[in-house]
Amino acid sequence: MLSGSDVAAHSSRQSLWMIIHGKVYDLTEFAPSHPGGERILLKYAGKDATEEYDPIHPPGTIEGALSPDKHLGDVDLATLSDEQKPVEQPVVKAPTGEAPVTLGACLNLDDIERAAERLLKPKAWAYYRSAADDEKTYDWNREAFYSVRFRPRVMRDVTQVDLTTSLLGFESSLPVYVSPAAMGRLAHPDGEKCLARVAATHGIPYIVPIPSSPLFSPDARSDSSTRSQLYVNRDRRKSEEIMRAVANAGYKAICVTVDAPVAGKRERDERAKLDEEAVPVAHTGPDAPDAPQDESSQGIAQALGSYVDATLSWTDIPWIRQASGGLPVILKGISTAEDAALAAHHGASAIILSNHGGRQCEGAPSSLETLLEIRKFEPQVFDQLEVWVDGGYRRGTDILKALALGARAVGIGRPFMYSLAFGDAGVNKVATILRDELAQNTRLLGATKLDEIVPSMLNTRELEANLWNGPYESPVSKSLLAKL
Amino acid sequence: MLSGSDVAAHSSRQSLWMIIHGKVYDLTEFAPSHPGGERILLKYAGKDATEEYDPIHPPGTIEGALSPDKHLGDVDLATLSDEQKPVEQPVVKAPTGEAPVTLGACLNLDDIERAAERLLKPKAWAYYRSAADDEKTYDWNREAFYSVRFRPRVMRDVTQVDLTTSLLGFESSLPVYVSPAAMGRLAHPDGEKCLARVAATHGIPYIVPIPSSPLFSPDARSDSSTRSQLYVNRDRRKSEEIMRAVANAGYKAICVTVDAPVAGKRERDERAKLDEEAVPVAHTGPDAPDAPQDESSQGIAQALGSYVDATLSWTDIPWIRQASGGLPVILKGISTAEDAALAAHHGASAIILSNHGGRQCEGAPSSLETLLEIRKFEPQVFDQLEVWVDGGYRRGTDILKALALGARAVGIGRPFMYSLAFGDAGVNKVATILRDELAQNTRLLGATKLDEIVPSMLNTRELEANLWNGPYESPVSKSLLAKL
Amino acid sequence: MLSGSDVAAHSSRQSLWMIIHGKVYDLTEFAPSHPGGERILLKYAGKDATEEYDPIHPPGTIEGALSPDKHLGDVDLATLSDEQKPVEQPVVKAPTGEAPVTLGACLNLDDIERAAERLLKPKAWAYYRSAADDEKTYDWNREAFYSVRFRPRVMRDVTQVDLTTSLLGFESSLPVYVSPAAMGRLAHPDGEKCLARVAATHGIPYIVPIPSSPLFSPDARSDSSTRSQLYVNRDRRKSEEIMRAVANAGYKAICVTVDAPVAGKRERDERAKLDEEAVPVAHTGPDAPDAPQDESSQGIAQALGSYVDATLSWTDIPWIRQASGGLPVILKGISTAEDAALAAHHGASAIILSNHGGRQCEGAPSSLETLLEIRKFEPQVFDQLEVWVDGGYRRGTDILKALALGARAVGIGRPFMYSLAFGDAGVNKVATILRDELAQNTRLLGATKLDEIVPSMLNTRELEANLWNGPYESPVSKSLLAKL
Amino acid sequence: MLSGSDVAAHSSRQSLWMIIHGKVYDLTEFAPSHPGGERILLKYAGKDATEEYDPIHPPGTIEGALSPDKHLGDVDLATLSDEQKPVEQPVVKAPTGEAPVTLGACLNLDDIERAAERLLKPKAWAYYRSAADDEKTYDWNREAFYSVRFRPRVMRDVTQVDLTTSLLGFESSLPVYVSPAAMGRLAHPDGEKCLARVAATHGIPYIVPIPSSPLFSPDARSDSSTRSQLYVNRDRRKSEEIMRAVANAGYKAICVTVDAPVAGKRERDERAKLDEEAVPVAHTGPDAPDAPQDESSQGIAQALGSYVDATLSWTDIPWIRQASGGLPVILKGISTAEDAALAAHHGASAIILSNHGGRQCEGAPSSLETLLEIRKFEPQVFDQLEVWVDGGYRRGTDILKALALGARAVGIGRPFMYSLAFGDAGVNKVATILRDELAQNTRLLGATKLDEIVPSMLNTRELEANLWNGPYESPVSKSLLAKL
Repeated sequence: MLSGSDVAAHSSRQSLWMIIHGKVYDLTEFAPSHPGGERILLKYAGKDATEEYDPIHPPGTIEGALSPDKHLGDVDLATLSDEQKPVEQPVVKAPTGEAPVTLGACLNLDDIERAAERLLKPKAWAYYRSAADDEKTYDWNREAFYSVRFRPRVMRDVTQVDLTTSLLGFESSLPVYVSPAAMGRLAHPDGEKCLARVAATHGIPYIVPIPSSPLFSPDARSDSSTRSQLYVNRDRRKSEEIMRAVANAGYKAICVTVDAPVAGKRERDERAKLDEEAVPVAHTGPDAPDAPQDESSQGIAQALGSYVDATLSWTDIPWIRQASGGLPVILKGISTAEDAALAAHHGASAIILSNHGGRQCEGAPSSLETLLEIRKFEPQVFDQLEVWVDGGYRRGTDILKALALGARAVGIGRPFMYSLAFGDAGVNKVATILRDELAQNTRLLGATKLDEIVPSMLNTRELEANLWNGPYESPVSKSLLAKL
Repeated sequence: MLSGSDVAAHSSRQSLWMIIHGKVYDLTEFAPSHPGGERILLKYAGKDATEEYDPIHPPGTIEGALSPDKHLGDVDLATLSDEQKPVEQPVVKAPTGEAPVTLGACLNLDDIERAAERLLKPKAWAYYRSAADDEKTYDWNREAFYSVRFRPRVMRDVTQVDLTTSLLGFESSLPVYVSPAAMGRLAHPDGEKCLARVAATHGIPYIVPIPSSPLFSPDARSDSSTRSQLYVNRDRRKSEEIMRAVANAGYKAICVTVDAPVAGKRERDERAKLDEEAVPVAHTGPDAPDAPQDESSQGIAQALGSYVDATLSWTDIPWIRQASGGLPVILKGISTAEDAALAAHHGASAIILSNHGGRQCEGAPSSLETLLEIRKFEPQVFDQLEVWVDGGYRRGTDILKALALGARAVGIGRPFMYSLAFGDAGVNKVATILRDELAQNTRLLGATKLDEIVPSMLNTRELEANLWNGPYESPVSKSLLAKL
Repeated sequence: MLSGSDVAAHSSRQSLWMIIHGKVYDLTEFAPSHPGGERILLKYAGKDATEEYDPIHPPGTIEGALSPDKHLGDVDLATLSDEQKPVEQPVVKAPTGEAPVTLGACLNLDDIERAAERLLKPKAWAYYRSAADDEKTYDWNREAFYSVRFRPRVMRDVTQVDLTTSLLGFESSLPVYVSPAAMGRLAHPDGEKCLARVAATHGIPYIVPIPSSPLFSPDARSDSSTRSQLYVNRDRRKSEEIMRAVANAGYKAICVTVDAPVAGKRERDERAKLDEEAVPVAHTGPDAPDAPQDESSQGIAQALGSYVDATLSWTDIPWIRQASGGLPVILKGISTAEDAALAAHHGASAIILSNHGGRQCEGAPSSLETLLEIRKFEPQVFDQLEVWVDGGYRRGTDILKALALGARAVGIGRPFMYSLAFGDAGVNKVATILRDELAQNTRLLGATKLDEIVPSMLNTRELEANLWNGPYESPVSKSLLAKL
Repeated sequence: MLSGSDVAAHSSRQSLWMIIHGKVYDLTEFAPSHPGGERILLKYAGKDATEEYDPIHPPGTIEGALSPDKHLGDVDLATLSDEQKPVEQPVVKAPTGEAPVTLGACLNLDDIERAAERLLKPKAWAYYRSAADDEKTYDWNREAFYSVRFRPRVMRDVTQVDLTTSLLGFESSLPVYVSPAAMGRLAHPDGEKCLARVAATHGIPYIVPIPSSPLFSPDARSDSSTRSQLYVNRDRRKSEEIMRAVANAGYKAICVTVDAPVAGKRERDERAKLDEEAVPVAHTGPDAPDAPQDESSQGIAQALGSYVDATLSWTDIPWIRQASGGLPVILKGISTAEDAALAAHHGASAIILSNHGGRQCEGAPSSLETLLEIRKFEPQVFDQLEVWVDGGYRRGTDILKALALGARAVGIGRPFMYSLAFGDAGVNKVATILRDELAQNTRLLGATKLDEIVPSMLNTRELEANLWNGPYESPVSKSLLAKL
């Protein structure tokens, strides 16, 4: 076992050792090719970099990046000098110059967001909040809700209201689930564990994100309704490993993200990186070899996206199902009636209509629009699989609008991430606000359970006016399939 | 009879007495369950709390909440120490640092609103002004008017103009009535009495709000055209009592609010509560038992809504008519053609197309839209009952737009509440402005009386473009009724 | 002949004399009923009030208001004390604290407006700029232009461009005329004379406004293409007098304003009055007797409107033509296809599609919309009379859009009034800018003369989407006329 | 050879000599008629004016304007006094008071624009940025993109992406070319040379602008894919000379700008001129003789436009082709289906759908709209010639939207001009950003090469709602051509 002074002797470009999780690695040869730049490695040369390394590297990154001979073994952490020890980084800022930010003053999910903007470190805020390009799709996700109107019915007994539903066979106390968003530890040391704990308490599913998350933590496994998310890895054997582990851990479904063969251009995230030079992001980006990368414009999103497999296609669904031991497959990121029909045709159990919170293709439709498009061109899909949605949902009324159009569940992403600034209490607050708003507005619509939320309670004419209107040829029509 | 010092001796949690309207109550046992929190009770323990209690509790609240043995009898008010005496609370602020606010400088109803914002106490302003969720429906109520255009006709003799109409058989000098808005005493000690006096002077109806109002004041009764509003109580015997009283008092109709089985989420109101901790609001809310309430997020609206009966349904109309001695029934809060047809079918004499000023279901249609929807799907309703409207009406032209589409009367709510900041003079100003604007624009449209305001004077095409377009099945079609 | 000291002796409510244009009037009895209030008369009691009186009273106001015995005769102006003498009021402010406002820096008509806002007295600016109610129609007049798009054609020889046209038989160098706007002397001592001079220089018509204008000034008469505007007076004999005078003075047409039986509610104007208490406005308003007037809310517009005859109707057209010696009749203020057809039917020679610059009925259509409506429902009108337009035209492209839809001439109102802040040079600048912009954009559309500006050069689809679509019944259809 | 002191002796209105590029000219007689005014000439009388003259005069201006006897010969530049020497004008400002502007911080083309606004001299910024009238068309060019939505497809192998295309027979590495914008030397001494160098490096075409550009520089010629732009001169012999030179220089096509028979009204440009009195602009404008020009309102655009031939018509295309030695003819500035059809009919090889960046006819359609219009009314045009577009393209997604509608190439103008503030590095950055964004979003749409970008990936319904809808008569229909 190495001592602190052994490691401290290797703190230069000539010999660069580093401690991560109590293990020593020789990064001398690797440093010049470190995707996040050499500078940050020199900053931690000879020291324990665990605190900085942890929240932003997918698990196993360093083990996979170095050959076994660069794994120098364990270090006796008790022998580290103060200079070598990891500096604990508070994830929540002490707000100054303004009134204190309290959870009690947060009445809705936008309040939580504003609080998080003040509390979180700029890098964390930027990563959560960022969206693609000019963030028009992000904005449009919200505006779509405003263009849909209700037709509330009165004089109905609404004393009792029941918000429970069944999702892929398991009961949920709300038609709501926690979306699989990465990097929860940027906001709170417990990150994904907070989300798992509170989701279990409320009896709603949590789709655990695999990149960056402590996949097999007891908390995450504790609730039987938890699902797990998968970005299929370029190294398919790694994906198979993960899927087997997912199945063994007792997860109830596997969610494959299909709208991110490359990461979107999230400039807010990239600017935060520019502002905070020391962020060690991986960026072996998937861009074409003839596209010279400007190194400085790489945010966390690009780093995370770099290992995703861009070859994923419909015929891989059986492989996924088999590798995960027959778990139901959820496809996240469907934006067209064609792909919804193809998902059903290829055996998916659920699809999530999503434009990735406006983080991927700038200009992609909101989930409400895709719901309408499927109703118009492939209505049988609603009988073939469960249709879930996400993207910009912030109010109970937003959720009810999707339910009225046939959605079975609504994913909440950023608000839960923001709420991590308050730990478990924040996550609980988000779930409670949504529950209250759902109960209240279900009554105000004249309904007492979710299947009474019907299309005639909605006026979607403004949204329909700009809906795509073909010409449409179903990719699963008999004639088209016959040709294949 | 008790003395001031008797009461002053019970000013702690161990023994908590309080004076309301010259009567002493023992609140020791009740305090922990006080919906508005214990803290506010301790603040007034051993003192006269009448000034604070009055404007925000429905009449009879304390009498109903305590068992008779807690009614300790009268106190000799002359014996109160200065500390015990109620502190008179000015309802109108003296504005500082800006030009004085004068009624003479108010040229329109928006001016009155801006003046009220400066003059009223924040809690009062917040209660009147607040609307549901993000207040989009509140905004939309105004925008709907802007999207409708006139087709004014010229070269017609418009020297004389007659604005009188008949509402449920009684003449009104204008097609306008004072909407039943609660909590008038937050703005003026005379509150509802001001409204009743000026409405009588102008010869327009006032629908007296039952919660919080001095129902049987001589002023309110003085005008034969006054109606009374009812929120049906969870305790139906109480409702019957009130209805009998309404009939005996000479009211000419009974107005039942049907769009508020639970109160909307009015965050402006809730924030004012947070800012002014001492507001003693009742909040035995109607939320589902599995929805843990965050105590701090309860405004005045929630308090008022807490005793409303959420079981009210169409078959209760005969009960209401009988209990009120056969008064015509007005249903306030209809938003769909279906419910308009059902109201006619079940014998209502008038309906008020209303989204409660945007205070209930965020996303509900404006009254202009519901007018168009009824014209499209249930046009016979206009012959079966009187169609009244409210929600965002601020200009004479707004009113004329509704009349051209078949409305018989328009309710003005917030502007009258705001005008209470100026007392009777303010209320008179609002009525006068509306009268002048109505006369002027009736002439500019080329009309001289209300039945000359015809649909062809209106271009509603922009509004119609987003009108709901079915599929529509009438709930009163013969085939549908046959099934029931 | 009276002396200054004779008049000065009558400077109280007990005896109130006043000098106007060198004549002395006894206003003692009249003062309490002065529409602008008694206070302003007391301010000038015993003094020469000409400077204050002149710009805001229609000619002959005082002569008509007082019986002959109150006309006390001439005063020797040389004998007035300094206190009695009129204080000359500069109409143009010296701007302070900002860069000087120069005509040379004005590149377009909006620049002229911004300059005028800084240069004119607040009362003058408010009168010119004001529009009805919330000024939405004023705004919409501009927005309508933005919603119409061009389809410019290329590869055409556009070296020479000819902008001349013929209006009611007289040539105009541009398809533009000066609209009849009152109160020019608020901006410049020469007021309407400036407009007449420059219009003559440019060879474009000027419709001289009769209220407030020096009708028979040599300048106004000098140009044969000048028309005259008429608001028909309640006293029809007065109207006949004016019309005879118009005909004798050589005017070539008579323009009757038909959209102002009462003045619109122009709050900007009214506020200026409130700010400047001393404005002596007439306000024997046309409001219903049961509508108590709030005296303070009367601006210049109300004063001017007070003598207008609200009984004017279609059958009065022959009377007008006869009284004016057979001059062509122009009807200003048509907003519907029905009234356009009726105007043609009753023998008008031209109509002006106008919503009075958004100053009358809030919600009336823009002239572009009325053009489209007439093209849709009464297309023959364009062959029966000349269709002129006004309202918000500021750019050469605005004018070309109206011409493409069949308008023959476009009236420019406010910009010419604003330009009076610079006198003749300002008026010339407005005409020159319009001429340049018209020439330039005619070329850019691929045209060289006005009749090459055709409908297919315009995309009006956005505007048409919200056009009124009936049901339409022509008021001049044979069947309808047969019934009359 | 003259000496500095020889020239310095002629520095007054009486005798006015000036040095340009080492040659001395006698401007004494010419000065009063100098289009940019006499004042600026007197400022440089007796001095070397090359630095001021160069960036804003088309090549050969002074040689052509003066008769040979005013060409006084060469001067020995070594003999100039310091006062006579040209003052080198830095084209890039040192920004003060804000953070330094670095290229590395520019993540997108809007960043480049904001940087340029801070770095460039006001005159240069105003010239590049300016657009016609109220700049509504400029804005609309961007908004049109936002109204079009994508329909991204997922689960497709997008590992490899190929962005190459063929333009008029030559390969381009991107469906992008550098638009012909004049006055590059206002931003950088190398101006057009930078653009030519970097375009060659990236393998994309550059359409070299003839006015103001160093046409035959080795850089410009070096790349075989470069095209050349032509504004046809009023002096057609000059145009023929230029076209012959273009052909001899090895250019591969000739681009004729057809939407600028006169320059648009670019007030931003004109105001910059007003602010910087010394700008010597030519302004023998094409306005009608009866339109007196206000001298001060002439910007750079007017100066450049003054020599353009406004007689150009369709029958001139054969003349152009012949004069340029048979080069393919590109027509830049088509806005209608009619003109697209006529261009094909008359033998153009490509058209550029363009409203000149909103700089010409305010109200002209965006290129996306014209694409849709051609698809609707003249779809065969896409087979008859190549359809290129420009106007407001800033993002890879903007470009993909045009490609999906049938465009073959997209011109980028202003961003490249702005990027000149950073020289070659800036130009390279713009090309690199576009390449990266194109690669990324092609993948996110589920495509791997440009011909997989198909119409069904686009939802243009919002844009189509306001598309012109006729009545359409094709100018190349057999019946119409028969009549000619």
